[in-house]
Amino acid sequence: MKRTLAILVAALACLPAMAEEAKPPRNTAELLELTTPEDWRTPDPANLLYLELPKGRVIIELAPEFAPLHAANIRKLVDGRFFDGLAVVRVQDNFVAQWGDPQAGEDNARSYGDAATSLPPEYFRAMIAGEPFTPMPGPDGWAPEGGFVQGFHAARDPATGQIWLPHCYGAVGVGRDLADDSGSGGELYAIIGHAPRTLDRNITVVGRILDGIEHLSALPRGTGPLGFYETPEERTLISSVRFAADLPEDERTNIEVLRTDSDRFRQLIDIRRNRQDDFYHTPAGYLDLCAMNIPVRKPDEEKAP
Amino acid sequence: MKRTLAILVAALACLPAMAEEAKPPRNTAELLELTTPEDWRTPDPANLLYLELPKGRVIIELAPEFAPLHAANIRKLVDGRFFDGLAVVRVQDNFVAQWGDPQAGEDNARSYGDAATSLPPEYFRAMIAGEPFTPMPGPDGWAPEGGFVQGFHAARDPATGQIWLPHCYGAVGVGRDLADDSGSGGELYAIIGHAPRTLDRNITVVGRILDGIEHLSALPRGTGPLGFYETPEERTLISSVRFAADLPEDERTNIEVLRTDSDRFRQLIDIRRNRQDDFYHTPAGYLDLCAMNIPVRKPDEEKAP
Repeated sequence: MKRTLAILVAALACLPAMAEEAKPPRNTAELLELTTPEDWRTPDPANLLYLELPKGRVIIELAPEFAPLHAANIRKLVDGRFFDGLAVVRVQDNFVAQWGDPQAGEDNARSYGDAATSLPPEYFRAMIAGEPFTPMPGPDGWAPEGGFVQGFHAARDPATGQIWLPHCYGAVGVGRDLADDSGSGGELYAIIGHAPRTLDRNITVVGRILDGIEHLSALPRGTGPLGFYETPEERTLISSVRFAADLPEDERTNIEVLRTDSDRFRQLIDIRRNRQDDFYHTPAGYLDLCAMNIPVRKPDEEKAP
Repeated sequence: MKRTLAILVAALACLPAMAEEAKPPRNTAELLELTTPEDWRTPDPANLLYLELPKGRVIIELAPEFAPLHAANIRKLVDGRFFDGLAVVRVQDNFVAQWGDPQAGEDNARSYGDAATSLPPEYFRAMIAGEPFTPMPGPDGWAPEGGFVQGFHAARDPATGQIWLPHCYGAVGVGRDLADDSGSGGELYAIIGHAPRTLDRNITVVGRILDGIEHLSALPRGTGPLGFYETPEERTLISSVRFAADLPEDERTNIEVLRTDSDRFRQLIDIRRNRQDDFYHTPAGYLDLCAMNIPVRKPDEEKAP
């Protein structure tokens, strides 16, 4: 009884404009029904990568504000058609799916053209005074503060002034060798398991998957060390990697992401922390950063019969 | 510099017996090389379930001390060959793979024989004074305390005296309908994504997967609501479910689990919280409960050429 009251008071305090809703939403589905077009954003097609695999399209939103050098280098690689015909080379269960050049480091490795083959790390950037930050309440553990910036999960440390993209499910990172400056964006991976945040600030995160992650996460696991495939036949071929902006309109996927700086998103955090509905009877009063999914929708598919 | 010193002091304080090792282990692989046979346990074959799928065997360790009614009921179901010929009916990305009777609830549903078709929930049990508990340092967020009991991840609340099995990657839970007492063990699921701990204390967790989870986690995702498959052809058939104890020795898998109440396991927690080696340069100083995997080994496979 006490707990329910506390939740209600918190909801009222945070969300005065929504407190009078006749039937407050209790879960994600109910909340999404209440959203208006202003609650959604259409990602910039110049930042949207389409990774085309045999079973479908993986849509990645790059985060050039967090990894400008790597985002720019990936742009050069895509412009040079570097990824076309390369492959998913590694799938390690509860960890990563990784794609790039199976011949990397060998004599017949694909040329990077005018793209860099190595770059300084972009493990974090400086916090910017006053930039919108939607906090996750409660302890993060991995960082002094967890939350959301510009549509991405973010972790930050006001004491050092650092902010970085955490390794949540769907995060896309830059494969590297032992040296911090040995990554380039020519080998990328996506997180397909429980968030391995030990990687935070040890690897450059360059974006996250918005849609189609199942085309990577459901691939057979590699049986070699670290989940690398042992034979070429096991690999999944990449037909192409393109920026949405470079494709004609009718070849783009219409996709929208719930704004992480919207009142509705803040309300969703609250609902998911205190989930209680026909199925969930004991609310946790907590949600870890990476358990907070950012809703995505594809309006064309929803309208289809 | 200060941080490194703090880590060193912590390591010395916790692990006096190991402080003099010539070359302290820096990661899981290095630590496992230092283990002795006493650090490992062989799970009781009476608690080991073999779920046989087309691509291989999934090995589940049941936790009868946490869910005695459900473990006993699963035993009855297995004795009655209930699961043989049933199927994986649902795979939802970043959430669960679920198996049971595709005809459940219909006229031609398989009979439960003398097993119960519904049971009271076993969402938690009472803490037992003095039972060994290996704590995870730092905040859990989801519970006042996180750690390990009898080889399982565990969360507990000393204020209420409750202890429960959290929904970490590989946890096996009891599917139910809306009512708390609508589960039986005849429909089970495994967590195949970022730990959805909102389910904690809302569902009975009955064990966890020790080996072979990739035979579930790499299955195609279902395209129906909640990841259910829409046609019978999409489902993966279960050839059989058996207890290891009921099979002849030569059909069992030799498997061992690092003891969670061993000094080596405590040392591993410390190493993984402060991971720093040739690849990891910035230690986090933290690890969340579900990111702490419990090492498993199959001695026969390691000895094979």
